Amino acid sequence: MTQDTQTPRFSFSLNATDGRARTGVISTPRGDIRTPAFMPVGTAATVKAMMPESVRATGADVLLGNTYHLMLRPTAERIANLGGLHKFMNWERPILTDSGGFQVMSLSDLRKLTEEGVTFRSHVDGSKHFLSPERSMEIQKLLGSDIVMCFDECPALPADRKRIAESMRLSMRWAQRSKDAFGDRPGHALFGIQQGGLEKDFREESAEALKEIGFDGYAIGGLAVGEGQDLMFQTLDFAPEFLPQDKPRYLMGVGKPDDIVGAVKRGVDMMDCVLPSRSGRTGQAWTRRGQVNIKNARHADDPRPLDEQCTCPACSNYSRAYLHHVYRSHEMISGMLLTWHNLHYFQEIMQGMRDAIAAGTFEAWEKDFHDTRALGDIEPV
Amino acid sequence: MTQDTQTPRFSFSLNATDGRARTGVISTPRGDIRTPAFMPVGTAATVKAMMPESVRATGADVLLGNTYHLMLRPTAERIANLGGLHKFMNWERPILTDSGGFQVMSLSDLRKLTEEGVTFRSHVDGSKHFLSPERSMEIQKLLGSDIVMCFDECPALPADRKRIAESMRLSMRWAQRSKDAFGDRPGHALFGIQQGGLEKDFREESAEALKEIGFDGYAIGGLAVGEGQDLMFQTLDFAPEFLPQDKPRYLMGVGKPDDIVGAVKRGVDMMDCVLPSRSGRTGQAWTRRGQVNIKNARHADDPRPLDEQCTCPACSNYSRAYLHHVYRSHEMISGMLLTWHNLHYFQEIMQGMRDAIAAGTFEAWEKDFHDTRALGDIEPV
Repeated sequence: MTQDTQTPRFSFSLNATDGRARTGVISTPRGDIRTPAFMPVGTAATVKAMMPESVRATGADVLLGNTYHLMLRPTAERIANLGGLHKFMNWERPILTDSGGFQVMSLSDLRKLTEEGVTFRSHVDGSKHFLSPERSMEIQKLLGSDIVMCFDECPALPADRKRIAESMRLSMRWAQRSKDAFGDRPGHALFGIQQGGLEKDFREESAEALKEIGFDGYAIGGLAVGEGQDLMFQTLDFAPEFLPQDKPRYLMGVGKPDDIVGAVKRGVDMMDCVLPSRSGRTGQAWTRRGQVNIKNARHADDPRPLDEQCTCPACSNYSRAYLHHVYRSHEMISGMLLTWHNLHYFQEIMQGMRDAIAAGTFEAWEKDFHDTRALGDIEPV
Repeated sequence: MTQDTQTPRFSFSLNATDGRARTGVISTPRGDIRTPAFMPVGTAATVKAMMPESVRATGADVLLGNTYHLMLRPTAERIANLGGLHKFMNWERPILTDSGGFQVMSLSDLRKLTEEGVTFRSHVDGSKHFLSPERSMEIQKLLGSDIVMCFDECPALPADRKRIAESMRLSMRWAQRSKDAFGDRPGHALFGIQQGGLEKDFREESAEALKEIGFDGYAIGGLAVGEGQDLMFQTLDFAPEFLPQDKPRYLMGVGKPDDIVGAVKRGVDMMDCVLPSRSGRTGQAWTRRGQVNIKNARHADDPRPLDEQCTCPACSNYSRAYLHHVYRSHEMISGMLLTWHNLHYFQEIMQGMRDAIAAGTFEAWEKDFHDTRALGDIEPV
């Protein structure tokens, strides 16, 4: 962990580009984040089924925490009193927190959206809460987040242009209020979030509004909300280009391995997704040869590892037969091992892309990635 | 791990005694077992919520595997084809397997007991199975168990003397059949199981029958089946003394920390129990100051560790407030951390007793153990 308490700082340096793909380093007082970076999601102050040391061992430089979940339980004030989220969850490296805006719209009950913010009821206990740009900034500060996200709002897709434009413009007004409320916090970063759905003109308008305000990094929001990979990639063909070259670009909530590779190819530096951990708890493994459903009876007698080339504990120490058995037996080690494998594989993809971009061989790396996936899983024994 | 493939062996050496408490070492080709030993239970080829490396890190020298569960799923034949239980579950140190007899009587459906053995239906899928001394020996051999238990049977207590005597004598006939079926397996041990309920004369008769057959170690069965600690200790005041001094004595299915200490005081060398792992999954922690229910609201804002003197990961890296939060949030790390703590604490008790017996200070150690427990949990913040 690189830490310089004398000069708290947040900076981004681009080390190499290959086509539109980029590799670099985000420096923070809590350590460096190598980009392109995949951020495991630690929703309720834990990456589900993992010890934080194990998450770090997969190669993760940064975690994502969810403001919505943490504000409801155990509450941001409680976490602040206990010394902040890093200490609370035993993760001393950087943490990015979302603003709560997306989860409020997708998880809470009886929500009411106004210019001021969102009133809603907790999905945990039905209690009433209010989120606004100012309250979101306050919560993320209480948590001690290193990378704070603007409070925003976005429609599920498909949506009509009028709804997308209105929502984007509200989010831009909230971005200004977020910036004002965030204030000056050396060593901490505030990211703006571009909205505008799949509409090129709105994406440009949103990027211009954000650049006018000025942020430490820029997220691409409002994608991976049901539009499918083709439309997401079409949007990523233009959306990142409207954002500054010299700041990190974060594509929120993405994705499957091929989504991630396609996003990096189009100039994205950071991503997050629950997929590797959620899949791990439901018996789904992601490997270089595609998805493996460990529940399938074909694995019951298979002495081979999930992926012979993988160096994670699940692949180094256990057979597919064991992984099948513990899944079928509802044993916790099933989720523990598959989550570890999936997170390890996702980080391996990121390292592969970072190395390939630095070497100027991203195109060959990408071809190999797709060719290997196209082989499909190994033949049954 | 001590391994000597040139001279496969199983032996027990007593290093010191203090009163009736004993400390020593069981040597096996897969490593030494320091006694008194507590064996975590890995029922379905996993100590629930734990990675095997972590179980080892708590200080466990040996695990227990359950014949009944493994024969039903994934089956002993499958495990044998996959290279045995040690490889299957990634635990290269010694494994003791029970005979299946106890679980058949407590877990299976529609069981029918005859002189020959027990016919029953699986609690997993209703399929029909048969267990006998010969089949139990076969299964434990297929699993590759280092310490094999005789197939036996025991009544729940209270039971009348007639039922206890008949059951004990059947178990003694089965012990002979177990010994005959086990045969000569250098480096592997077969343990007989003393029965006889709380009856001194039957315990003596059973011990005499077992010694006549001759075993590598002797278990005390039929206790911790509902009789309570007082009656168990009263029985342990005489039952171990009927068994050979120069062989390990294993008290099956025990117990809570004070049960364990009282058993060691009475000459027991080995124990196993699901308690530390089961408690860990239900929010119960065992500490030197007694039990802590982490669900309790008093912990919600408590920045202190579960036990300030404990060096386990749960106590080193997390507050009670965090442990409370993740339990309330149904996060897997709750069971992972509390199980780790509980297993660590149980092994710490064992190490404390081994050291005290070797130093001739067991009485003082025991007094301190009880005095510290009597303090109760630390005051709320």
